[in-house]
Amino acid sequence: MIIVLKPHSTPEAVDHVLKRIEELGLTPHLSQGVARTVIGVIGDESKLQVEPLRALPGVEQVVPILKPFKLACREFHPEDSVFEVKGVKIGGGHLAMIAGPCAIEGEELLYETAVKVRDAGANILRGGAFKPRTSPYSFQGLGEEGLRILRRVGDALNMPVVTEVMDPRQVELVARYADVFQIGARNMQNFDLLKEVGKVKKPVLIKRGMSATVKDLLMSAEYVLAEGNREVILCERGIRTFEDSTRNTLDLSMVPNSKHTSHLPIIVDPSHATGRPELIPAMARAAVACGADGVHVEVHTCPEKALSDGPQALLPDQYARLMAELRRLAELLGRTIDVCEGVTA
Amino acid sequence: MIIVLKPHSTPEAVDHVLKRIEELGLTPHLSQGVARTVIGVIGDESKLQVEPLRALPGVEQVVPILKPFKLACREFHPEDSVFEVKGVKIGGGHLAMIAGPCAIEGEELLYETAVKVRDAGANILRGGAFKPRTSPYSFQGLGEEGLRILRRVGDALNMPVVTEVMDPRQVELVARYADVFQIGARNMQNFDLLKEVGKVKKPVLIKRGMSATVKDLLMSAEYVLAEGNREVILCERGIRTFEDSTRNTLDLSMVPNSKHTSHLPIIVDPSHATGRPELIPAMARAAVACGADGVHVEVHTCPEKALSDGPQALLPDQYARLMAELRRLAELLGRTIDVCEGVTA
Amino acid sequence: MIIVLKPHSTPEAVDHVLKRIEELGLTPHLSQGVARTVIGVIGDESKLQVEPLRALPGVEQVVPILKPFKLACREFHPEDSVFEVKGVKIGGGHLAMIAGPCAIEGEELLYETAVKVRDAGANILRGGAFKPRTSPYSFQGLGEEGLRILRRVGDALNMPVVTEVMDPRQVELVARYADVFQIGARNMQNFDLLKEVGKVKKPVLIKRGMSATVKDLLMSAEYVLAEGNREVILCERGIRTFEDSTRNTLDLSMVPNSKHTSHLPIIVDPSHATGRPELIPAMARAAVACGADGVHVEVHTCPEKALSDGPQALLPDQYARLMAELRRLAELLGRTIDVCEGVTA
Amino acid sequence: MIIVLKPHSTPEAVDHVLKRIEELGLTPHLSQGVARTVIGVIGDESKLQVEPLRALPGVEQVVPILKPFKLACREFHPEDSVFEVKGVKIGGGHLAMIAGPCAIEGEELLYETAVKVRDAGANILRGGAFKPRTSPYSFQGLGEEGLRILRRVGDALNMPVVTEVMDPRQVELVARYADVFQIGARNMQNFDLLKEVGKVKKPVLIKRGMSATVKDLLMSAEYVLAEGNREVILCERGIRTFEDSTRNTLDLSMVPNSKHTSHLPIIVDPSHATGRPELIPAMARAAVACGADGVHVEVHTCPEKALSDGPQALLPDQYARLMAELRRLAELLGRTIDVCEGVTA
Repeated sequence: MIIVLKPHSTPEAVDHVLKRIEELGLTPHLSQGVARTVIGVIGDESKLQVEPLRALPGVEQVVPILKPFKLACREFHPEDSVFEVKGVKIGGGHLAMIAGPCAIEGEELLYETAVKVRDAGANILRGGAFKPRTSPYSFQGLGEEGLRILRRVGDALNMPVVTEVMDPRQVELVARYADVFQIGARNMQNFDLLKEVGKVKKPVLIKRGMSATVKDLLMSAEYVLAEGNREVILCERGIRTFEDSTRNTLDLSMVPNSKHTSHLPIIVDPSHATGRPELIPAMARAAVACGADGVHVEVHTCPEKALSDGPQALLPDQYARLMAELRRLAELLGRTIDVCEGVTA
Repeated sequence: MIIVLKPHSTPEAVDHVLKRIEELGLTPHLSQGVARTVIGVIGDESKLQVEPLRALPGVEQVVPILKPFKLACREFHPEDSVFEVKGVKIGGGHLAMIAGPCAIEGEELLYETAVKVRDAGANILRGGAFKPRTSPYSFQGLGEEGLRILRRVGDALNMPVVTEVMDPRQVELVARYADVFQIGARNMQNFDLLKEVGKVKKPVLIKRGMSATVKDLLMSAEYVLAEGNREVILCERGIRTFEDSTRNTLDLSMVPNSKHTSHLPIIVDPSHATGRPELIPAMARAAVACGADGVHVEVHTCPEKALSDGPQALLPDQYARLMAELRRLAELLGRTIDVCEGVTA
Repeated sequence: MIIVLKPHSTPEAVDHVLKRIEELGLTPHLSQGVARTVIGVIGDESKLQVEPLRALPGVEQVVPILKPFKLACREFHPEDSVFEVKGVKIGGGHLAMIAGPCAIEGEELLYETAVKVRDAGANILRGGAFKPRTSPYSFQGLGEEGLRILRRVGDALNMPVVTEVMDPRQVELVARYADVFQIGARNMQNFDLLKEVGKVKKPVLIKRGMSATVKDLLMSAEYVLAEGNREVILCERGIRTFEDSTRNTLDLSMVPNSKHTSHLPIIVDPSHATGRPELIPAMARAAVACGADGVHVEVHTCPEKALSDGPQALLPDQYARLMAELRRLAELLGRTIDVCEGVTA
Repeated sequence: MIIVLKPHSTPEAVDHVLKRIEELGLTPHLSQGVARTVIGVIGDESKLQVEPLRALPGVEQVVPILKPFKLACREFHPEDSVFEVKGVKIGGGHLAMIAGPCAIEGEELLYETAVKVRDAGANILRGGAFKPRTSPYSFQGLGEEGLRILRRVGDALNMPVVTEVMDPRQVELVARYADVFQIGARNMQNFDLLKEVGKVKKPVLIKRGMSATVKDLLMSAEYVLAEGNREVILCERGIRTFEDSTRNTLDLSMVPNSKHTSHLPIIVDPSHATGRPELIPAMARAAVACGADGVHVEVHTCPEKALSDGPQALLPDQYARLMAELRRLAELLGRTIDVCEGVTA
């Protein structure tokens, strides 16, 4: 850590800072420059929080040197993390192809969609039973009945299933039905929820919050990892910017950026990011091309009747054409798309 | 609602849209323009969700006419809402002056701070017992012990107290100790938590999320109101933008903007918004000048030893000077700052 | 255009709006709904500006139906525009591979870099002679001497050259040396400059401003097109957001988004967007995968000695490896990368 | 400056960085920490640009210590700058009250508006003759005829006048008619224009760009100051964010923030920032309350017929009521609003 003092700091102010650092068991190194005095701090940076030192009189700036996350950091875990969910590998060159409707609306409809996306090459089935809706008057999901449907359809088709959990009180329930937990963008910093899923031994897919930096997302992953659950999958799904012709702004540079800093797999959700089906195939291709470990796409057999997010869903045929493109792209780039057990691709 | 069709839509596409609107029990009005066909929809707009219609083939744009919130809307409740907490009124010209440390760290420290802010004119005491920290390795709050301390200090000084609740499982516990619930910015769209505090008869202060629009914040208020709890206080605390010299960007136009649309009181938190104590007094003055119903300021007797957010806290003396300014300003503008029972201002 | 009136508008206010529309030679269509009165306007929307109508008493919202740009719009020009610069085609499946140093620093250095990028497959040479630098104390470019060097190197290697023009007074000078004008992000709404390059018959590459929407960029293109110059190339180079681990946030959804609305070619600059060389190859691949008509990359033989933007430059070897990947990707996707005359790829 | 090396840097990499610093005539101070090696650089930081050092192999981060602007910096000019324009002082407690129509549309109309705003207490008249419009099809201003009108009206009423200059070729012309140059938000980084107005001895009002940080704005001021013109007035007019219910997001914390760093006066434009007349008075009061050196408001006698930005203009009566409030506020806060010569306030 480096502490920069204000210009013309008094010797007393400097001494006060030095003493405080020593009280914390660390060693200060003083450098007097022409315009500023700078103090380098040697020792275990994790011992002290950066914040309080900024409050010391005479301190202008505190520059941390180490990253604030550890378990998520590639520095301490150089190889890509690879997880396996019912025979489908994610990470390290294996792509998770997650598809399904935004919300589970009924068993027949989900089954029909699931067969089509599986046949197109999807290897994980998604569907929401608990839906975080901006309006209290919108459809809020089928709840446990939705979870039961998802499990039955997944089992019938040998597909692992992912579904959102929104409330720490639901974690146990959702764990009984789902293979992968999803933490939605709005709950990315719902720390009690993160701790709760951290206690279960199931992979957790964390969606980036709409105003979260790469660092914020990795800190949220750290909450799960610190509880002992090492299977965290990151998901870029767009951030909020001034651009209003897409629902959000897909930040694809997040993919190589996050992989540079962290060993965790990262997938991309072009459906929520763009909100416009005509842009989804292009952005899915781009996601694979820049190194994403998977793509998450919403598919609905009749978008105009969907109870949630219909306008951004692809039709099953559109998804099948997209998957054909993504398979060729993955092959060119030396990546693998696992198929579900029993499926002959 | 207005539905704009794509150029050169076929008569079949137009018919399909018209039928769908009639199926929903509404009346479509067709206008054929030079370049576009437009359909106005008459009837109870709340019957249909705007979203799915965008998924109809041939539809280019759907323009809702009514606001998606009702209970929060001034259109249906023209007068300012005014709430009273232990004799302190908020809204309708009465200003809530909320002050205290970021986190409750101990009884003696809280008492000392509380006496000073009360003497300076604060009429609500704040302090966090459950702390949403970006890092799992940071101080997470004293929990129930913190709530007990807060209650005892509030009672000793006749000050109502506000504290954050982060988890639906804590709502009952926090309700036993707090006079006002705070929902933090990171939980603004934690809908299960909003529903839970909506069931309790205590005012709820909802902080605007870092990427929430005015509309989003009012929709979150609507979640609480729809459960039967009509005492919601909004709080502007800065949004995330590209500007990096302040912690967030305080969006003060939110204040008259929200008051134009909604009857709910709105207060301002310049501490979290700026993260820089030297900017807080100026922004607190601006908040009162633009019509805020209160100001929320963090105060600590020794910021450099604070366990959370020390660098952005004002010292008690600085707070007292600020309150003297704010009182003069409030008087000039014809607003009232209630004092706590038993205090002789 | 659709005009939504405020609730409870008086008949006088409604009449006033109707008269104003008729004065403008257009036909109003009145629809009285339960909660709002809505007026559809039929006729040549371009006759009236949307803005002033918002100022009419009683008007709540004005919703334009047509896009505000015409010449840039795909609706009026369905095929992709394709331009040719010294035998290199851009658009319609032909990719512009633009490479070179940020600033021209000397003839030998530029020649050395140009040979290497041409051999790697670049088909347009870039280099700045006039440099828009945030600080007045930074290197401002070699001016006309730089232009002369660029021209000589381009001619020696049969490469068309692109360089930035910053000032309307330089347009004639730059036109003598350059094959393609570049308008930098900071000048995207320098309308006098846009008009000036619109009068010259040379392609103009317009970089998206850091806070420009897709619509804003197309309006700037419209300024050039309206002057008679139909050869405009758009360039996505990142926008400003809260994310601070990259220099800007590359908005790749801009590519299919812009191509959906406009016939103009659009290329991507991952160098300025990310500012981090380790992220550039991934984002260049993503750009080609999502349909960009070219990639613009800064290359320097010794980044640590570059006079401008060194840290974001690729080394020639890194560029060569990237181009090999991009060629394979382009082939898979059925796109063509033209080679400069006389080069045997 | 502080240079942080990557973990496990080789001794060769460290040596290379040390040599480079010494070549630049500076003195490196090496500190070896547990996890990182850090090099402090002592000497005249302005000798070396920060950027190229980031490109050195082994360098992870370069942290500049000094601010990149000098003439604009309060560190080197502790007192507030105060300028005088035809008897009206700006800065150091004197408020510039700038008012007038967005565009000059005719002499009679401008005169009528000018009389009203002067009588209300405005002390500088504004009006655009050259208009930067997003669309090439919008009204572009009256040009020199507009300047002549502005000058005549200003002279008739003893009001100094401010008007926008957009093109370096217009600087001489505009200087013949205007008392203060305005640089619009879209031209804030039009560096050739900044240099040109820097050569004239007239105050320059620079509007903050929609995506400019405080630092960026001060760097643009530095361009003018470095040419010898020391009379720069900053102007906050809103930045681009995701919030879409206001035209831009007014960043009022910019006011105390900029005054903390710089001695230059800073005024606020709530008209462009909000785009909504009903929010302007509240934000103008907030501007004065947080320490702004003036307020810039658009006023039009008939907003619905305005040729530019009508919907955001105040009526003269609304402006007069606002000025009455601002005068009381200014008095309370100990600030002065100069009146134009010959006016008896």
